Amino acid sequence: MDIDNFFSAKSIAIVGVSKDPKKVGHVIFRNFIDGEFRGKLFVVNPNADEILGHKAYKSVLDIKDPIDLVIIAIPAELVPKIIDECGKKKIHHAIIVTSGFKEVGNDKLDRKLEQTLKRNKILAIGPNGLGTFDAYSKLDSLFLPRYRLQRPKEGNISFVCQSGAVGSAILDYATDKGYKFSKFASYGNAMNVDESDLLEYMGNDPNTKVICLYVEAVKDGKKFLAVAKRVSMKKPIVAIKGGKTEEGSKAALSHTGSLAGSAAVYSAVFRQCNIIEASSLGEMFDIAKMFEICALPMGRQVQVITNGGGYGILSTDAIVTSSLKMAQMSAETLKELRKQMPVIATVNPMDLLGDATTERYKIAINAALKDYGVDILLLIVLYQTPLVSTDIVDIIVETNDLCRKPIVCVSTGGEFTETLKKNLESNGVPCYNFPEDAVRAIEKFVQYHRK
Amino acid sequence: MDIDNFFSAKSIAIVGVSKDPKKVGHVIFRNFIDGEFRGKLFVVNPNADEILGHKAYKSVLDIKDPIDLVIIAIPAELVPKIIDECGKKKIHHAIIVTSGFKEVGNDKLDRKLEQTLKRNKILAIGPNGLGTFDAYSKLDSLFLPRYRLQRPKEGNISFVCQSGAVGSAILDYATDKGYKFSKFASYGNAMNVDESDLLEYMGNDPNTKVICLYVEAVKDGKKFLAVAKRVSMKKPIVAIKGGKTEEGSKAALSHTGSLAGSAAVYSAVFRQCNIIEASSLGEMFDIAKMFEICALPMGRQVQVITNGGGYGILSTDAIVTSSLKMAQMSAETLKELRKQMPVIATVNPMDLLGDATTERYKIAINAALKDYGVDILLLIVLYQTPLVSTDIVDIIVETNDLCRKPIVCVSTGGEFTETLKKNLESNGVPCYNFPEDAVRAIEKFVQYHRK
Repeated sequence: MDIDNFFSAKSIAIVGVSKDPKKVGHVIFRNFIDGEFRGKLFVVNPNADEILGHKAYKSVLDIKDPIDLVIIAIPAELVPKIIDECGKKKIHHAIIVTSGFKEVGNDKLDRKLEQTLKRNKILAIGPNGLGTFDAYSKLDSLFLPRYRLQRPKEGNISFVCQSGAVGSAILDYATDKGYKFSKFASYGNAMNVDESDLLEYMGNDPNTKVICLYVEAVKDGKKFLAVAKRVSMKKPIVAIKGGKTEEGSKAALSHTGSLAGSAAVYSAVFRQCNIIEASSLGEMFDIAKMFEICALPMGRQVQVITNGGGYGILSTDAIVTSSLKMAQMSAETLKELRKQMPVIATVNPMDLLGDATTERYKIAINAALKDYGVDILLLIVLYQTPLVSTDIVDIIVETNDLCRKPIVCVSTGGEFTETLKKNLESNGVPCYNFPEDAVRAIEKFVQYHRK
Repeated sequence: MDIDNFFSAKSIAIVGVSKDPKKVGHVIFRNFIDGEFRGKLFVVNPNADEILGHKAYKSVLDIKDPIDLVIIAIPAELVPKIIDECGKKKIHHAIIVTSGFKEVGNDKLDRKLEQTLKRNKILAIGPNGLGTFDAYSKLDSLFLPRYRLQRPKEGNISFVCQSGAVGSAILDYATDKGYKFSKFASYGNAMNVDESDLLEYMGNDPNTKVICLYVEAVKDGKKFLAVAKRVSMKKPIVAIKGGKTEEGSKAALSHTGSLAGSAAVYSAVFRQCNIIEASSLGEMFDIAKMFEICALPMGRQVQVITNGGGYGILSTDAIVTSSLKMAQMSAETLKELRKQMPVIATVNPMDLLGDATTERYKIAINAALKDYGVDILLLIVLYQTPLVSTDIVDIIVETNDLCRKPIVCVSTGGEFTETLKKNLESNGVPCYNFPEDAVRAIEKFVQYHRK
């Protein structure tokens, strides 16, 4: 299925661009104007001559240029007619943001739209979806204003999301946290492009390193199983299932018009496809960022280095109760370390104590990374103590660039801490607030790579 | 045990104030000067005449005024001698931030200090602890600079924390998130003032509504059981245990010199005392803030209102798999609602749809709060959609002020969202990033009040 135009169309028509700045079509158009999209843009509105200084066409049929993609934001009952016009115009891809179909019980109109799309050989994302966003091509059909929903920078996470609200909220949240994206698609009712088609596409996207998936109901189970198995061999898929309980499933029925199915069935399907199941939206991105930026783990031996004893203890508790193991450094490494360090209170967690300096961290980090018994470094840096100078960030980043072992940081704090964490994350070192979050993410990361 | 001076001493001597701005004693003194402490302050340093413009005394014995509290930041081996001088000076309370005792295996010095304290009838917080902070009296012995560790405003959470690093990191984090505190104590090795004494004190503190506790090892099990049972009848205690696993417990031994004991034993003790056990540091404050600011719950029936279908589904999943219940509004309420609302897709979760306006929220919120079948309102507001105007914050706050049911908000997003959330939280409405976090906190909140 060729769905590339949903992400890299060079010429786009938006049907239903009102003069009213509050209307969906207007916001979409406005976002294109304010954004960095470099392709051609056409506006369709039968009742206007121009909108925001752009010529308005009465119909897509009046546009002379070929159109790669149409974005439709008009009342539901008018959509089939417009689709027929798009067919005549030889448009093959449509994003339908309009809602009011199966999800509100309007099955008749739903069937009509489905048939119209089929007859005109048009692939559609939606209806009742937010559409797509591509951080590289700058194609952005999200009908939410930029001051409310920040757009992410170019990166390597892609996000396939049935629900538009989940998609936009998470996109905004993740952008604020500094996560970078390749592609995003909110596919709503999945009329003829579904989660499997999008997974397959993201699987082949060279910019995508990890795929996040929020799904309420898989449309075609067999297809999903085949595609997900294939894609997860190449790239990790981190998924969350909405409507795992019977009650949640009922709510899903009226949300995107699909029956959600039981928790047990989905968890089994996910396991079978080697899909990583997240237990919450927050955890989904905790896991994804590790896949985006970390080096591959060679094993599951974790070395903890900390300047806070309590954090070392909590990390140990979390590691020991997971499928990970506490690393054991060799006698040579420790002998070498003892020459350079004043006191080593405990070896793993290695507590550098409250008066730890950046220099002491440097010695410990290098020793741990060189040791064959260490696969992953869990580095706790509490920036509240003044002897940890801010150049520790440079040291961690430089070490991370050179070494082939994943380094994962934990820091808790306010503004000062957050600034340093953002610095680390934008330079390829994933950071977490609490030991438990980090360990949970490391565990999923290692599990995927050991399969 | 009279330990009030640790929090509200009116005259304080700091022993070991170096001229070197990097040294612990100097930072403590500096923080007092920069802070809002209104009591008398004396500096002791036998090798200086003045420090930062303040007269330096050779010994506490040279100070004419009575001293309520001494803060000691000198090398470990000198501490007993200073304690003897404090005894002569009739000082009865000492915060000993110095480390180098039992936690590094120096048992002999440990015993000597313990005996010296006993002989001089001095109660000590520490050694190897951060000391205390009181948001009301402004007494602040934390030896961490203000630019790295923000100090919280006056509020109703108190935090008893064995580990100094956990304490300071969390205090900084929680302050940044807008949580407000009454008192904080990091008690380190717990030589003669322990977690039970501090719990008892916080239990009697009129400014404390909820107590957070991080403990690695309880010193006196019987005493703890008796005190915790008594205190938790009056006020909720939310606790996290460091060193629940054997490995974590070993790490704890060298951290604060105490054997931590098994997970099962502690969980049983916590249950017996009606202590709420948090599974991570993050969750501890997720729970605490609900106790700090929410109205009492009358039952466990939760009504979900949302403008994002997916969030409604995830909330339902979380509620149904907890000990909470989905509320069922009465037929009358629904009849009334249907008159005012366009379409009600689902009743609980009540999906106000992506084009929900503030007005629509207002109608739904009022209906839910009036209904006898609703005990708690889980209000999901995704601010990405432009029809939710920012005055929804005023409406939620006004409603919250008037109603007697807990309102809990969930919003996910970037800067715009965060600003509105901070606004809500500082006006008494707890906010969470994700439905799962909110539901977990509501569950613990309800469980405590149902016992």
